[in-house]
Amino acid sequence: MAESKITKRSEDYSRWYTDVIAAAELADYAPVKGCMIIRPNGYAIWEKMQQALDRMFKETGHQNAYFPLFIPESFLQKEAEHVQGFAPEVAVVTHAGGSKLDEPLIIRPTSETIIWNTYRNWIQSYRDLPLLLNQWCNVVRWEMRTRLFLRTTEFLWQEGHTAHATYEDAEEEALRILGIYRRFSEDYIALPVIEGLKTETEKFAGAHHTYSIEAMMGDGKALQAGTSHHLGQNFAKAFDVTFQTEKGNREYVYATSWGLTTRMIGALVMAHGDDNGIVIPPRLATTQVVVVPIFRKPEERERVIQAVENFTAPFSGAGIGFKIDVRDQYSPGWKFNDWEKRGVPLRIEVGPKDLEKNQVVLARRDNGQKSPASQEDLAQTVLNTLETIQKSLFERARDFRDKHSYRIDDYSKFNEILDREGGFLWSHWCGSGECEERVKDDTKATIRNIPMHSEAEEGKCIKCGSRSERRVIFARAY
Amino acid sequence: MAESKITKRSEDYSRWYTDVIAAAELADYAPVKGCMIIRPNGYAIWEKMQQALDRMFKETGHQNAYFPLFIPESFLQKEAEHVQGFAPEVAVVTHAGGSKLDEPLIIRPTSETIIWNTYRNWIQSYRDLPLLLNQWCNVVRWEMRTRLFLRTTEFLWQEGHTAHATYEDAEEEALRILGIYRRFSEDYIALPVIEGLKTETEKFAGAHHTYSIEAMMGDGKALQAGTSHHLGQNFAKAFDVTFQTEKGNREYVYATSWGLTTRMIGALVMAHGDDNGIVIPPRLATTQVVVVPIFRKPEERERVIQAVENFTAPFSGAGIGFKIDVRDQYSPGWKFNDWEKRGVPLRIEVGPKDLEKNQVVLARRDNGQKSPASQEDLAQTVLNTLETIQKSLFERARDFRDKHSYRIDDYSKFNEILDREGGFLWSHWCGSGECEERVKDDTKATIRNIPMHSEAEEGKCIKCGSRSERRVIFARAY
Repeated sequence: MAESKITKRSEDYSRWYTDVIAAAELADYAPVKGCMIIRPNGYAIWEKMQQALDRMFKETGHQNAYFPLFIPESFLQKEAEHVQGFAPEVAVVTHAGGSKLDEPLIIRPTSETIIWNTYRNWIQSYRDLPLLLNQWCNVVRWEMRTRLFLRTTEFLWQEGHTAHATYEDAEEEALRILGIYRRFSEDYIALPVIEGLKTETEKFAGAHHTYSIEAMMGDGKALQAGTSHHLGQNFAKAFDVTFQTEKGNREYVYATSWGLTTRMIGALVMAHGDDNGIVIPPRLATTQVVVVPIFRKPEERERVIQAVENFTAPFSGAGIGFKIDVRDQYSPGWKFNDWEKRGVPLRIEVGPKDLEKNQVVLARRDNGQKSPASQEDLAQTVLNTLETIQKSLFERARDFRDKHSYRIDDYSKFNEILDREGGFLWSHWCGSGECEERVKDDTKATIRNIPMHSEAEEGKCIKCGSRSERRVIFARAY
Repeated sequence: MAESKITKRSEDYSRWYTDVIAAAELADYAPVKGCMIIRPNGYAIWEKMQQALDRMFKETGHQNAYFPLFIPESFLQKEAEHVQGFAPEVAVVTHAGGSKLDEPLIIRPTSETIIWNTYRNWIQSYRDLPLLLNQWCNVVRWEMRTRLFLRTTEFLWQEGHTAHATYEDAEEEALRILGIYRRFSEDYIALPVIEGLKTETEKFAGAHHTYSIEAMMGDGKALQAGTSHHLGQNFAKAFDVTFQTEKGNREYVYATSWGLTTRMIGALVMAHGDDNGIVIPPRLATTQVVVVPIFRKPEERERVIQAVENFTAPFSGAGIGFKIDVRDQYSPGWKFNDWEKRGVPLRIEVGPKDLEKNQVVLARRDNGQKSPASQEDLAQTVLNTLETIQKSLFERARDFRDKHSYRIDDYSKFNEILDREGGFLWSHWCGSGECEERVKDDTKATIRNIPMHSEAEEGKCIKCGSRSERRVIFARAY
């Protein structure tokens, strides 16, 4: 295996990102432009993410299903905004089984159309509502500029599609999911996010309105980490999905949809990684702990390995994912480096001198701190340390974000900060798409969202000076 | 919800199958010909299957990864047999992002080509071997005649792809997986299977040889339930994947691949279903138990529900998946029928008279037996009963298969039995593709496999009378 060198983060952030992914063996580019191969180390993170999210979806009454990859081209046309948003980036199957197809099929870029075409058959009465489905699948959007995990032609995601009797029920669902996304980001990825409303320009093509969670990456840029859409009755009208109300009227059904993708692996890399590589938050790490036995002489080897086997014996039962690195062809130092670049949150070093003191040395991946720990009750110490690391990663990311968040009321200052360090600029905005567009043209910054939990505050639009009622978040984004 | 009537199994097996799937809400046909929508009840079975298999793969050292949906058309051409087998049934993307593609992309019908093109970069030395990967994904094969779960244009599956230093290592892997498939079928689907070698005609396009597990359905027809292929060095040669041996030579890598698909849901339906609908083996049921409280007067309702809450309190902790059906608008009889057609393995009925005796009534889905059980320690009784049901389903399917298995040495008898009842015909075969083909033309029966655990026995080919060394299984198959 070739030694992989990681470019310093401060030197070239973009190359650092690529190098970290290569060093940790998370993903490769595929022979088809813009597609990626998710390697076992990357896929293991996705599996942990799936498990956590899937559990939260099921706890809130959602069920999984599977809808087809292929969508008749005509379906896309049925919702006017939707087709405008997605038609330019679809992949089209024109031939199959050796013949030209009568109607071309598009590969799903998202599944609202095929699902709402199906819901017409499934929903008749208010008794059939709410319908709360989710699917885990691949989707395809033909992107020109791609980057591993962050923007790829094919990606994996979950897409939820729910149907409700009233606007209020759909709104509650859209917000419930936004809350799940926030908790998932914060509790698992250790990534603080800001919940808010997307502007009209930035909302999902076909939505009534869109909510998002927005996170800050290690270079000060923003990343949209998940979106939850209130679709109103748009898709029900496009696919003629009505239901009989309790009072006996027929009404169109209200809808939500929401998705979170493999780009979150990229977010994890950029939020926590350092010059030594990726750092995986303990709750998403399959290997949470690596044990590196240290010895020089053969007779030491046996004693050390024996001790390792003793103190790791309770680990599995305690739910700790761990590996013991007994590869004789590598030095301890080489192993330290190897596991660091793979992001294993905690390393346990143990040598003959530690045995004398009945201790081990714990080395934290997040901050490099080393500290001795007793071999007694080590499983509990390890669990506590993993929780501490999980919490520290979150706090460090939150502190970083707060340090790079600014209340800006001056447009030249706005530009200056963006150029210098990126960051989140909390500025006033009058609400016009025109100002939004002009700021983007001037600075490449977009409105990430209109935060939901910020206080109302009178002010003047950063661009035009008109009256504004609250600050929004401007940032350059992935 | 429309009442769905199930055709009697004895009347029209094929319609019965379709009706059972509709009644249990397992799947629907999609608007695109041959594609299916897997509904929540069907997908829940698939999730349970995935969990069981995935655990077995991981316990034997396999990791999951994800390779792209799109394969450059030229890749398929590189292995001569492979292209012959798959080219006629691929779906082709010719346009994407608004332009015609330079090279058409096929939607993976299986991933050997894209994976072995990647392995060329990942495998250099014997130290990189074995490489044991699996992926869960969708694949597309353009089929003319489709049937829900059994044969659909798009289906879900897992495909394992492993790389080994020697022929023997690959052989061991192919057989290890065959064993996992067998245990999975028997222990989870409660479906007895016969392990064996496919004939040259029936092996995977590109394999050195193929193993399969074969099961008998309720109409006496065979169903291939899983295949494990020893690919020899075929794909390594096609994609130039070599490794440095311990001695320093360069050699081509040996390969296996293996897959199991959503057709197993169809197998489950056909193996255990009856005139009342599907029967889900307890280990694959999300809802293993449904509790139907019975009462006439409002004051009874409260007492019964209270008792139900008491005796079900320990269920979750005991790992029992259960539901309490408190829908007031339906009668107990209607509910019994509703849960029967959904295949819930065990029903608990409880009414005021049961309360007096501190008991409930257990009704088994597999055989309709009802028996009283004490409310004391009911969780344990339920667990035991679920195990009994799991075992009984297996035994019933095995007895059915054995009853419809025949040692046949006479060709007119062979035809007669096939026409009368299907079944597995253990007959002698000389080994020639010509005899195999002629039997198929005469009778529509194919050689399912050459069983591995049957004894050698001298005999004469059922078709040509030439010398034969063992019996093989002939059957009509799905």
